[in-house]
Amino acid sequence: MASSTPLHLIIKSGGSAAIPEWTALFAEFAPHVVVHDWNTPPADRSLVDFAMVWEPDTGALARFPQLKAIFSSAAGVDHILADRDLPANLPIVRMVTGESQQRMAEFCLMATLMLQKNMPRALAQHRQQQWIEFNPPHVASELRVGILGLGTLGAAAAQMLRAVGYPVQGWSQTRKQIDGVTSYCGQDELAEFLRSSQVLICLLPDTPATRGILNAALFAQLPAGAQLVNAGRGTQLNSADLVAALDSGQLAGALLDVTEPEPLPADSPLWTHPRVILTPHIAASASRRAKARQVALSMAQWQAGQALDNCFDRVRGY
Amino acid sequence: MASSTPLHLIIKSGGSAAIPEWTALFAEFAPHVVVHDWNTPPADRSLVDFAMVWEPDTGALARFPQLKAIFSSAAGVDHILADRDLPANLPIVRMVTGESQQRMAEFCLMATLMLQKNMPRALAQHRQQQWIEFNPPHVASELRVGILGLGTLGAAAAQMLRAVGYPVQGWSQTRKQIDGVTSYCGQDELAEFLRSSQVLICLLPDTPATRGILNAALFAQLPAGAQLVNAGRGTQLNSADLVAALDSGQLAGALLDVTEPEPLPADSPLWTHPRVILTPHIAASASRRAKARQVALSMAQWQAGQALDNCFDRVRGY
Ligand SMILES: NC(=O)c1ccc[n+]([C@@H]2O[C@H](COP(=O)([O-])OP(=O)(O)OC[C@H]3O[C@@H](n4cnc5c(N)ncnc54)[C@H](OP(=O)(O)O)[C@@H]3O)[C@@H](O)[C@H]2O)c1
Ligand SMILES: NC(=O)c1ccc[n+]([C@@H]2O[C@H](COP(=O)([O-])OP(=O)(O)OC[C@H]3O[C@@H](n4cnc5c(N)ncnc54)[C@H](OP(=O)(O)O)[C@@H]3O)[C@@H](O)[C@H]2O)c1
Repeated sequence: MASSTPLHLIIKSGGSAAIPEWTALFAEFAPHVVVHDWNTPPADRSLVDFAMVWEPDTGALARFPQLKAIFSSAAGVDHILADRDLPANLPIVRMVTGESQQRMAEFCLMATLMLQKNMPRALAQHRQQQWIEFNPPHVASELRVGILGLGTLGAAAAQMLRAVGYPVQGWSQTRKQIDGVTSYCGQDELAEFLRSSQVLICLLPDTPATRGILNAALFAQLPAGAQLVNAGRGTQLNSADLVAALDSGQLAGALLDVTEPEPLPADSPLWTHPRVILTPHIAASASRRAKARQVALSMAQWQAGQALDNCFDRVRGY
Repeated sequence: MASSTPLHLIIKSGGSAAIPEWTALFAEFAPHVVVHDWNTPPADRSLVDFAMVWEPDTGALARFPQLKAIFSSAAGVDHILADRDLPANLPIVRMVTGESQQRMAEFCLMATLMLQKNMPRALAQHRQQQWIEFNPPHVASELRVGILGLGTLGAAAAQMLRAVGYPVQGWSQTRKQIDGVTSYCGQDELAEFLRSSQVLICLLPDTPATRGILNAALFAQLPAGAQLVNAGRGTQLNSADLVAALDSGQLAGALLDVTEPEPLPADSPLWTHPRVILTPHIAASASRRAKARQVALSMAQWQAGQALDNCFDRVRGY
């Protein structure tokens, strides 16, 4: 297909209000792409070649008979897989950009520093208008960070934490070679990995194997007083177990960027726990500009008949 | 003086409760040192060779006639200079350790990341139990950090911020050569330095020239929406000007580790301003272990007849 042939892309990301911005961005990065608003699809649905979506309604994607690929507007694809009528065998492309890797690495570094410096205590004192000096116990070189998931995001976080001087280790399905980062893999090596992770950062994808993985049994294997960062998915955390571990002192603090569900319900004890810091899923949000550039690249790969990068793997499940 | 001759050190840092720990630490690092508690000085005050102090009472140091040097238990010496009856010409040694440099660098990195990621907004939402996603605008390479004061602490902070990818510039009295850090110096170059500092970190000492330097006139020279970190001294900040700059939008947020006075009084508007984060002077507190090691080193320099490192300079005033 010549690059002058128009390609039709329908978008559900940011609502109808975001369509003018998307249109302008694709005019810049891929002028032959015609952008459609998810809320006003073309009368002839077979025109649509690609969809870029966040939380598509069940069955909606199946109604575009000529779809070539689905772009997730985020790194996770759980919100697309939730559609039981999803067309089988269509490539699903995860949103991975240099910008989202950089942002996630920065976020994990910030979260680690905040827990190291006991910011839950400083923030609680601030709320109560108390000024009590204290001495955060560690410097970076004394605090071992363990990262669950060493994929595109986990590896970026590991490298930035290394650059600041933290000892870093990671856990994944397959063995990794990342400079200065100890690699653990599989169920067999999980206990050994946990035993020395003073700050545990979860950057796993949502899969049947990872759902509920952050639970009492796992917390008990961490060193006493360990701290938790969850920037993977809320489904991975058992909140009741977290509260119990914080209250017993097994965990000293937690910073959660993801919850289940989102928004976090009003009756969740996480809202008011003094040792929990919540951020509203802001860890690695890429700009629309970076996303449009990435989707334009993927469409160019497709047009050139190449394999698409960052494809969801139906066998692995992530 | 042979190293077996006892040296007498009197300590006012952490109160009487801390004396057993200090005694044990000096037994390890300088076994010939006899530690005295400030609250129970020896009957013969002329025995005392050195004092390590935090906020000594007015006139108290002058009552040790054989004092050879005064060790500040912190990097600043303003709390010692406040004593109008301070013996003239005695060396005053600032507490500078590798550990406090590392901690300050980590703290400035944490503060910069927290402001970059708009944590004041995330924390305010958390307090109000609101979950509203937002997109922090910058990655590190897009956010220029300006450091007021490139001394032992400022230089350490500059290097760590560089390692993570921030463009970094600093301002001092004299020109500096730090890899990748633009050096501005003196009043003549202050405006140019401020114009491009999107995050401004103050690490200046308390002197007549720096008192009140963080005021409306200075804030007006920063780019609109700039952010402030004060980890120098509370005396350097005009709080009313800060509140006005935050309310007008000229400043987007601030993180303050020091206030005037400390503890911050109950009626200060800083306690409840939604765009201010307060920490209780925890940025660079070194451990007693690191402090004792450093003071032992200084006493060894004195015994060897060498010039003492990190001396307060009465001419410069810091
Ligand atoms: N909070 C946010 O703002 C935000 C933003 C973006 C993404 N995320 C979350 O971050 C997740 C990770 O993103 P990514 O791009 O890094 O994904 P990725 O490249 O697919 O990496 C996933 C990592 O998890 C490992 N893994 C998966 N299942 C495992 C299991 N059962 N046991 C051990 N290791 C397992 C993988 O091991 P192998 O490498 O050996 O395959 C891989 O290292 C996303 O799925 C999403 O949920 C959150
Ligand atoms: N928040 C905390 O926990 C904490 C902990 C420790 C220290 N502090 C504060 O941090 C301050 C700095 O410590 P430090 O060890 O880095 O001190 P330092 O080594 O003496 O450095 C002071 C820096 O400020 C510059 N400076 C001083 N007066 C100036 C002026 N009028 N105009 C321009 N530049 C000026 C100096 O310039 P030159 O290099 O050209 O002389 C130097 O770069 C301490 O005095 C203390 O107030 C805070």
